[in-house]
Amino acid sequence: MAGSIFGNIFKISTWGESHGKGVGVVVDGCPAGVPLCEEDIQIFLNRRKPGQSRFSTPRAEDDVVEILSGVFDGKTTGTPISLVVFNKTQRSSDYSEIASYYRPGHADYTFDMKYGFRDYRGGGRSSGRETIARVAAGAIAIKILGMLGISVMAYTKSIGEVEIDMNNFDEAEILKNMLYMPDRIAAEKASELVDAKRAECDSVGGVVECVVKGLMPGVGETVFNKLDASLAKAIMSIGAVKAFEIGDGVNVAKTLGSDNNDSFMINGAGKVCKETNHAGGILGGMSDGDDVILRAYFKPTPSIFKEQHTINKSGENIDINIKGRHDPIIVPRAVVVVEAMTALTVLDLLLMSMTSDINRIKGFFSDNAN
Amino acid sequence: MAGSIFGNIFKISTWGESHGKGVGVVVDGCPAGVPLCEEDIQIFLNRRKPGQSRFSTPRAEDDVVEILSGVFDGKTTGTPISLVVFNKTQRSSDYSEIASYYRPGHADYTFDMKYGFRDYRGGGRSSGRETIARVAAGAIAIKILGMLGISVMAYTKSIGEVEIDMNNFDEAEILKNMLYMPDRIAAEKASELVDAKRAECDSVGGVVECVVKGLMPGVGETVFNKLDASLAKAIMSIGAVKAFEIGDGVNVAKTLGSDNNDSFMINGAGKVCKETNHAGGILGGMSDGDDVILRAYFKPTPSIFKEQHTINKSGENIDINIKGRHDPIIVPRAVVVVEAMTALTVLDLLLMSMTSDINRIKGFFSDNAN
Amino acid sequence: MAGSIFGNIFKISTWGESHGKGVGVVVDGCPAGVPLCEEDIQIFLNRRKPGQSRFSTPRAEDDVVEILSGVFDGKTTGTPISLVVFNKTQRSSDYSEIASYYRPGHADYTFDMKYGFRDYRGGGRSSGRETIARVAAGAIAIKILGMLGISVMAYTKSIGEVEIDMNNFDEAEILKNMLYMPDRIAAEKASELVDAKRAECDSVGGVVECVVKGLMPGVGETVFNKLDASLAKAIMSIGAVKAFEIGDGVNVAKTLGSDNNDSFMINGAGKVCKETNHAGGILGGMSDGDDVILRAYFKPTPSIFKEQHTINKSGENIDINIKGRHDPIIVPRAVVVVEAMTALTVLDLLLMSMTSDINRIKGFFSDNAN
Amino acid sequence: MAGSIFGNIFKISTWGESHGKGVGVVVDGCPAGVPLCEEDIQIFLNRRKPGQSRFSTPRAEDDVVEILSGVFDGKTTGTPISLVVFNKTQRSSDYSEIASYYRPGHADYTFDMKYGFRDYRGGGRSSGRETIARVAAGAIAIKILGMLGISVMAYTKSIGEVEIDMNNFDEAEILKNMLYMPDRIAAEKASELVDAKRAECDSVGGVVECVVKGLMPGVGETVFNKLDASLAKAIMSIGAVKAFEIGDGVNVAKTLGSDNNDSFMINGAGKVCKETNHAGGILGGMSDGDDVILRAYFKPTPSIFKEQHTINKSGENIDINIKGRHDPIIVPRAVVVVEAMTALTVLDLLLMSMTSDINRIKGFFSDNAN
Repeated sequence: MAGSIFGNIFKISTWGESHGKGVGVVVDGCPAGVPLCEEDIQIFLNRRKPGQSRFSTPRAEDDVVEILSGVFDGKTTGTPISLVVFNKTQRSSDYSEIASYYRPGHADYTFDMKYGFRDYRGGGRSSGRETIARVAAGAIAIKILGMLGISVMAYTKSIGEVEIDMNNFDEAEILKNMLYMPDRIAAEKASELVDAKRAECDSVGGVVECVVKGLMPGVGETVFNKLDASLAKAIMSIGAVKAFEIGDGVNVAKTLGSDNNDSFMINGAGKVCKETNHAGGILGGMSDGDDVILRAYFKPTPSIFKEQHTINKSGENIDINIKGRHDPIIVPRAVVVVEAMTALTVLDLLLMSMTSDINRIKGFFSDNAN
Repeated sequence: MAGSIFGNIFKISTWGESHGKGVGVVVDGCPAGVPLCEEDIQIFLNRRKPGQSRFSTPRAEDDVVEILSGVFDGKTTGTPISLVVFNKTQRSSDYSEIASYYRPGHADYTFDMKYGFRDYRGGGRSSGRETIARVAAGAIAIKILGMLGISVMAYTKSIGEVEIDMNNFDEAEILKNMLYMPDRIAAEKASELVDAKRAECDSVGGVVECVVKGLMPGVGETVFNKLDASLAKAIMSIGAVKAFEIGDGVNVAKTLGSDNNDSFMINGAGKVCKETNHAGGILGGMSDGDDVILRAYFKPTPSIFKEQHTINKSGENIDINIKGRHDPIIVPRAVVVVEAMTALTVLDLLLMSMTSDINRIKGFFSDNAN
Repeated sequence: MAGSIFGNIFKISTWGESHGKGVGVVVDGCPAGVPLCEEDIQIFLNRRKPGQSRFSTPRAEDDVVEILSGVFDGKTTGTPISLVVFNKTQRSSDYSEIASYYRPGHADYTFDMKYGFRDYRGGGRSSGRETIARVAAGAIAIKILGMLGISVMAYTKSIGEVEIDMNNFDEAEILKNMLYMPDRIAAEKASELVDAKRAECDSVGGVVECVVKGLMPGVGETVFNKLDASLAKAIMSIGAVKAFEIGDGVNVAKTLGSDNNDSFMINGAGKVCKETNHAGGILGGMSDGDDVILRAYFKPTPSIFKEQHTINKSGENIDINIKGRHDPIIVPRAVVVVEAMTALTVLDLLLMSMTSDINRIKGFFSDNAN
Repeated sequence: MAGSIFGNIFKISTWGESHGKGVGVVVDGCPAGVPLCEEDIQIFLNRRKPGQSRFSTPRAEDDVVEILSGVFDGKTTGTPISLVVFNKTQRSSDYSEIASYYRPGHADYTFDMKYGFRDYRGGGRSSGRETIARVAAGAIAIKILGMLGISVMAYTKSIGEVEIDMNNFDEAEILKNMLYMPDRIAAEKASELVDAKRAECDSVGGVVECVVKGLMPGVGETVFNKLDASLAKAIMSIGAVKAFEIGDGVNVAKTLGSDNNDSFMINGAGKVCKETNHAGGILGGMSDGDDVILRAYFKPTPSIFKEQHTINKSGENIDINIKGRHDPIIVPRAVVVVEAMTALTVLDLLLMSMTSDINRIKGFFSDNAN
């Protein structure tokens, strides 16, 4: 079964390791007729690429994407779109030492247990570079959602104890600061925190929030393929995410029904809306027409420069000092990954939702009769 | 695509509505040779059935399961196992009124938007009775895991602000109190809280925790089908769950790498273990041999008896008073559902993991050569 | 993985054995709003039920279908439809002897090899009664296709050496004779053949042909999920089918390109059509707007009353005489099964085809905007 | 859903067009530890590459495969294997004319109907070059099957009316003649036939046979995922295949049960075997331990140089003369494609079969306990 294929209708198949020849993705099930060029994808990859700031690894990758198939005359053809980013600056020598032991907080041990051995260079397949493929495919999903009037926007909500003030929320600020926070003041405080912890050879965690606007009601399938459940899987599949929530999330466990229920109402424009949005835009696993709001909780980067205890492959207790190029915080570069995974999930369920109602199916085929 | 099928190898297909003829599940992909009788399943269904306590709906269902196929001479045959629980006490008249409006916090509105109309009797397919099928199938998964030395145990961790004290943790207590809390004192306080809120025509939320013990390392697939991601989807697909976490969960966002990393060590018995388990037993999406620990955050029951605002199908703002049989808290009856969904996910990924390594595959077939 | 689930969007999950409590199917992914009652399904089941003629087993089953879920107010709700046919006249004693040996041409041996043991009563899961579930689900698919202007019709093309004369083709005749042949004269000759072979304690094979009319062009997915490939799997999954063909089928291997190519033309009505239909309505794996024509080749019933050689479970060579209730020919009762599997496949791919083109997707959602 | 992903456990995702940048495949679910290098794959690609003989297109492609991921230290790592063959000699100008009309026997019309437009260069995605990806992935499957003692061998059985004489069957001959026939005399006659038809600007069809030896009993899943049904889909998904059969295939329709049944017996070595193999090694959809034998019927190449009638995109009846590089027969180059698809299917179902029996599962995990 393996695990590098995602989606039901808009399916992606990803591949590649940190220090292999490259990283890529095949998108199968992309509708035909979508205008697409490499620049559409590159702008998203640029948001996750290393070396953007002093908080990201100094590995200087260009991460230039190339479209190998599935686009003709500037439009998708409906057949598989193959995207590749070739690796440029693999320095495998950096990693030779880690072949012999298991880094705490990493997948080294579990890879060996599962597969009998592992590609230890830079984490191999478990490297953060794997997310390039997610972001590249997500860029296509975001473009398609945009054509249908749906936007997806993620940002850093908090880093360590530093959280954005929703009263200062400034969307334009997100792409301006190195931490992708929509609050300039919080971003400055967070920068100081990260600098301080890096100086201590340590790392910090944080929270990414993502909002989907313009999603029509009824997207998501009952019981097991609910929109929230599907988003949970998509987001939790990103390395380092340890918790996921929708709407009020963990806080609902301490509220009362009378506070948590969102009343429906007809607004001034005669449209159905809700007075509040504790539900985060999802009821019974289906979108309710309101903003979908989710949050991903990231652990601190496990690669820290402090001395740590662990074991080696010979079964001896040892102390290690990890070297190499590592971000002191995962969150900023993960923002666009959360955005990508959200878009991939929403688009897939949106396409699925087209077959829910026989009357709309009949309309579809009679509109398109020759 | 719809959404009532779950799993990749051990697949379940569920059906049924609150006020239809019954609720059931077909299990496809259950290995042959598993001893199975109805009592194996019934003991799990009894833990979720209504009328068990003053905190659950007084609807007096027996919820008796019947095996219709897939078992011969007391053992599973490897072919589909069909399980059914016929509904006994549907009182559709209770629900006729809700046909005309959209209850806050429920799926009424989204069902209508998606499907054009809905079975409004008791919530139809979005009723909590749908979970009978999950629990019945989960009972089989738990039995198989047990044969492989793996246990799954869930319990109520908190209700509203009342949380168990881990120092008082008493496993035997879980099945003794009506709230399935492993701490008698907390259970008493929580009972008082629920009573008080019910008296106010309100409802409360809470948290269920689940622990998997004995799981071998290497279960879970890299990238998208990680064990944690798959568990997230499974658990978030349970109605009313709004957040999911593994190990330290949301708290990791505020910790440092040096605190969050779990050091590996060789223990006294010469076995690999970890000094701590912040990771909740999962590294890189694969089990690491330690206990897998997850938490589900449940919202308060949306059906409350207080007056609420909403709209009707004619698009008018109205006030409603919900009637019928409703629990003031979802959590206690959901404990066994969390256990079931966890078991279904773990078993499915465990079976998947058998094909990870060619040397083990060769061993499998040479052991079994005629 | 098991094998009792079929389809991608319109998914069915079947269960049941010959001598168990019953046979059933859960349909997940049926669009909401389809008018459906038990009679819609029963008329198809009546065409495959035993005891209809002297060519079918005298087992007197009523095969009455019951809808357990997924239908409300006479229409499908979009949630799973559970259908069941309870077995009435299991006579397990008939089969006790076959527990000890492996019948030639049956799945007894392979079941034991795969699962370690088997439900030997009447073939258990490998019994022809399994097809009840296919026919029941297929009836729903046929109904939906009909709502979209698409018809599916199967009939017996040949039995042994007796083949219908296409010049005598009479659609009305199909349901009139016991062999479901659209040619009365051929049907009479075939009846004589079957009678003769039954008298010799032997059995005969035959061919079923199926025609789909009214299918719009573009149904079927490129490369692996082609319409013809998907139909091949669906039809070859019916027990006793040993060959499958589309259009001119096996004969194409001996033709020339200039004879086999179908020229496109604009007909008198200004519509695109083909001068011939050697292709059987499929080009590049997609429907071309012409009739889809397929054929299934069935082997003779393996249960014959002549003495046969085989082995028993103790590994001894033995001679056996099979007893019980068996048709001397499979074909007539399989006609409706071929029809069902064809419909299930076409509908599934038709629903899938709705997401092929972004312009049509945009049209779909703007037509349905609130 | 699209259609370029194949398999359940050993999954492949293919991409690429005739005149795009290249053709490739991502293999997800390949077990770790399989020794693999590019030469292992290249030897299979060399058997299908153009320009091998006077019967294949003179397009001079090297078709050199490159492994981009999933292999480390000479062994597969268990993570996705990305393979690519870059196109070298695209001459798009050859094809500019066909943009305006629909070639008979090709997918031009159906592509336009489904997707709204098409990549017309060399057939785009519907080109035979798509099969490079199948062969490359199939080479890995064949290697793994070989490690388990299973061989897969395909050859040309007939071309037009010229069929091999099974009495002259010479396996060594297959790779010696340009038509991949295991009978030198038949190969010479067939060569004359193809030469003659090419001289007449026409093309011929033929039959490929494939034999799987050494397959253990019990591979294949009951009901819908039968081994024969799965093989049917795999083989029918190859362009130009119009019929598929197992064992005696179409001939079973004219035999008697007493002739068609294969008696089981204990052979001299005390092993279970069958006296005959009319079934082609499959009973009840599962392998029975005997050779699996299948046949694929290919139509003549649709691109012929004779004048043909068709329509253009403006809806006018026109006459055309196809130009370009085209084989007068598809069969020889398709032999290795049939072998590849057979291997992919058998391996996938073989891996699936590991979870059929709880006792074997218990053995697997206890053998591998730490």
